[in-house]
Amino acid sequence: MQTISENACFGGTQGVYTHASKVCACDMTFGLFLPQEAADGPVPLLWYLSGLTCTHENAMTKAGAQAWAAEQGIALVFPDTSPRGEVVADDEAYDLGQGAGFYVNATEAPWAAHFQMWDYVTEELTRVLDHSFALDMERQAITGHSMGGHGALTMAMSLPGRFRSVSAFAPISNPTASDWGRKQLSAYLGTNEETWAAHDATLLMREKGFDGPILIDTGTNDQFIDLLKPEALAEATAARRQQATLRMQPGYDHSYFFVSTFMEEHVAFHADALYA
Amino acid sequence: MQTISENACFGGTQGVYTHASKVCACDMTFGLFLPQEAADGPVPLLWYLSGLTCTHENAMTKAGAQAWAAEQGIALVFPDTSPRGEVVADDEAYDLGQGAGFYVNATEAPWAAHFQMWDYVTEELTRVLDHSFALDMERQAITGHSMGGHGALTMAMSLPGRFRSVSAFAPISNPTASDWGRKQLSAYLGTNEETWAAHDATLLMREKGFDGPILIDTGTNDQFIDLLKPEALAEATAARRQQATLRMQPGYDHSYFFVSTFMEEHVAFHADALYA
Repeated sequence: MQTISENACFGGTQGVYTHASKVCACDMTFGLFLPQEAADGPVPLLWYLSGLTCTHENAMTKAGAQAWAAEQGIALVFPDTSPRGEVVADDEAYDLGQGAGFYVNATEAPWAAHFQMWDYVTEELTRVLDHSFALDMERQAITGHSMGGHGALTMAMSLPGRFRSVSAFAPISNPTASDWGRKQLSAYLGTNEETWAAHDATLLMREKGFDGPILIDTGTNDQFIDLLKPEALAEATAARRQQATLRMQPGYDHSYFFVSTFMEEHVAFHADALYA
Repeated sequence: MQTISENACFGGTQGVYTHASKVCACDMTFGLFLPQEAADGPVPLLWYLSGLTCTHENAMTKAGAQAWAAEQGIALVFPDTSPRGEVVADDEAYDLGQGAGFYVNATEAPWAAHFQMWDYVTEELTRVLDHSFALDMERQAITGHSMGGHGALTMAMSLPGRFRSVSAFAPISNPTASDWGRKQLSAYLGTNEETWAAHDATLLMREKGFDGPILIDTGTNDQFIDLLKPEALAEATAARRQQATLRMQPGYDHSYFFVSTFMEEHVAFHADALYA
């Protein structure tokens, strides 16, 4: 693992690190904020999964999360959203290929060789973090924005016991029924839609739910709201009687101005679960 | 004036606007955060002047200032750092020309035709803001980062009564004695160093001082600290018995991770003066 940068930040350290990923078969870069408390021993970890077009860097510089993570003594990890590099397949569209991994393990050509983001996040990067930093992996929570909200919700429901709480900002909530989903799931997983179900938060909510609290914010002026389908997940959540807070935030859109506005409440929500 | 974008943000609105600037003879773009309170009447205004290479956008997305401005009911304006466009002179170096206006009125060719950033900020943009938004121009304060800290300090000291308080993050503090200063002042103002003195915070502190509180933070690990010369301004401030808080922040560098860490305290500092 190579240190790209480390900056003092809210009493802790905002680092950027690169490592050779076996599962993605390329170098992968991630951001990690460690609060001051990590100098004295392992701290809880909140994952932040980013959305389409993002790298590890966007949320790290624009979401304003470090202020609140420092206040709560929680680490933040910002993984990249896909494998990267000249040898890695890509597409001209912004919503397929590099920057658009969708947090699945691709099975189809040309994607399968590198696009293994589910295993990368839930297994390989998890091990890297556990081995290299002062993190208490018994206390993990997960959040994300848009495509990353989709990743956070599907991982939290698919890995019972792994995450104590899950939240999302404007998540892609029903990708098997949306153009933000059908295109990518067919490209990465093939046309057999049965393989898609494991990557749809609404279907997972119907099937499994989550053993812990859920917090989801979506802006009423979100320019992509028809692609996000919050109504499908809201219906499934209520039908399941799942412990959850789903909020429609008046006037907010899909931007980081929206994300940063509600970040304090999301971090506090996770802190409640992580320190319970 | 043209609205480029408006995003809901911490209960208020983060806008970006473009207008035809007479003094810079080109279109100029600025960011403006209006807190919720602006819907009910004029609010105080805090200027944020950015550093080398920045546009109106960097601090607007990375400094985390809106959270605290919203809490205090204060507006934030983020001007660009220079004139822009194909007709505007530029230089290959990052620290001269576009993105490096240094907050002066250029008198030398080829810069004088457009590089009039002192008048742009203190006169033209001030008028535009006053005419177009719910701002209480009797309650203004100013801050900035690096080259923008230089701009904030020189404007505050040169315009008595305009700003109730001034702060700076890692300001260029003695440009007439630094490579971050001598190069630009000679290019923009010519080789007669007497014309430079009005744009050196240390010389202005010796000459005039500021009729209000000053807060300055600089990181001890700032990679540009030898160019910033905080020691010169510290000496002049103490010699003048100027009301001021000058802090060296251990471990912090020149980045927005540093700026965002101390933003809450800077906004609170200005709020104390603006609401006094």
